[in-house]
Amino acid sequence: MSKVTCQISMSLDGYVAGPDATLDEPLGQGGEQLHEWAFAAAAWREAHGQVGGEHNADSEVLAASLARSGATIMGRRMFSGGAGPWADDPNPNGWWGDEPPFHHPVFVLTHHARDPLALTGTTFTFVTDGLESALEQAVAGANGKDVTIGGGADVVQQYLAAGLLDELHLHVAPVLLGGGRRLLENLGEPLPTLEKTDVVETPGATHYTYRVRR
Amino acid sequence: MSKVTCQISMSLDGYVAGPDATLDEPLGQGGEQLHEWAFAAAAWREAHGQVGGEHNADSEVLAASLARSGATIMGRRMFSGGAGPWADDPNPNGWWGDEPPFHHPVFVLTHHARDPLALTGTTFTFVTDGLESALEQAVAGANGKDVTIGGGADVVQQYLAAGLLDELHLHVAPVLLGGGRRLLENLGEPLPTLEKTDVVETPGATHYTYRVRR
Repeated sequence: MSKVTCQISMSLDGYVAGPDATLDEPLGQGGEQLHEWAFAAAAWREAHGQVGGEHNADSEVLAASLARSGATIMGRRMFSGGAGPWADDPNPNGWWGDEPPFHHPVFVLTHHARDPLALTGTTFTFVTDGLESALEQAVAGANGKDVTIGGGADVVQQYLAAGLLDELHLHVAPVLLGGGRRLLENLGEPLPTLEKTDVVETPGATHYTYRVRR
Repeated sequence: MSKVTCQISMSLDGYVAGPDATLDEPLGQGGEQLHEWAFAAAAWREAHGQVGGEHNADSEVLAASLARSGATIMGRRMFSGGAGPWADDPNPNGWWGDEPPFHHPVFVLTHHARDPLALTGTTFTFVTDGLESALEQAVAGANGKDVTIGGGADVVQQYLAAGLLDELHLHVAPVLLGGGRRLLENLGEPLPTLEKTDVVETPGATHYTYRVRR
């Protein structure tokens, strides 16, 4: 059966994006530092249609995660940075390019209905009836593989608080951002309990796997 | 020359004490979970005049840290939980017992002057003229060993923001506290830069050593 996982990079001070995120700088000030371990990895480059990169432990962690994932759920902001009606979205096809790196079905949580958007290798389906509906559709689309909650922070928090997340893959980068979007807050009551099941340590990140229990 | 270090346990969501700390529960709700790795360690028990405990990697990390430390600086709240004049402090000799675990000079930052308090093996000196004065006195008292900033969070933040901390020894426990006192905030501008120089991974904690640069 599909597991529901999240994989996300976080600063040591708990942020998944830096302060003052904009359409031009969606990760906020300094936010790109969170992902340097990934940007350098061969597996990341391959997923993004690039060549080269390091064949290191970071790349192995990422490759394993990509191989397990059969569908992704993300929030509207992570898709395009927009929020209101699609007609007003400055970035209606998202910022993932003509050939997005997912290569599997992606479900976008939004308050604004829209027909699916099929790009090369990835179809984005827009879900307006909530977390559980998105999860059901993603499980159906994942072909037996895992469903990845991609972000942003608020979406991860909602799945954690609803008790719907099985595993948290947290990549903690050795940087401070000093502000931005925190990941581990608004997690509901009682708090989820985490069981640390694997850790891979590299210069660019500590790659934690936590099993989530409620 | 003495290095100025901090060693402190933090939850995965960034807290060094849980919510609703009281005199009876100074670490706040759930806060003891942060220190389970230490409580079980032989080195911790030895420092607290107890026998037994685990001879494991956690204990080695703690033993090395204790061996390097020649003086400790802490805030008034960490000393006794009090805040106002000493005459009103319900806990004027602190909550460290008749034989405190430090076995070296301890400097307590406070707004209220007081003569030194000599207990078995540890003398507490009360410093009313600020961070730098406490640091000078601690360096003089450390006999060439390191000075440890013990906490709480606000004291660590002040030394970090003032550029006075050389090394941060952060023990990240695999728990969520959901509230309480955050460590890595109010760090000033520009933010300190951390260089990860060592990591020891155990079931109870990830023991990070960061060199601090400004």
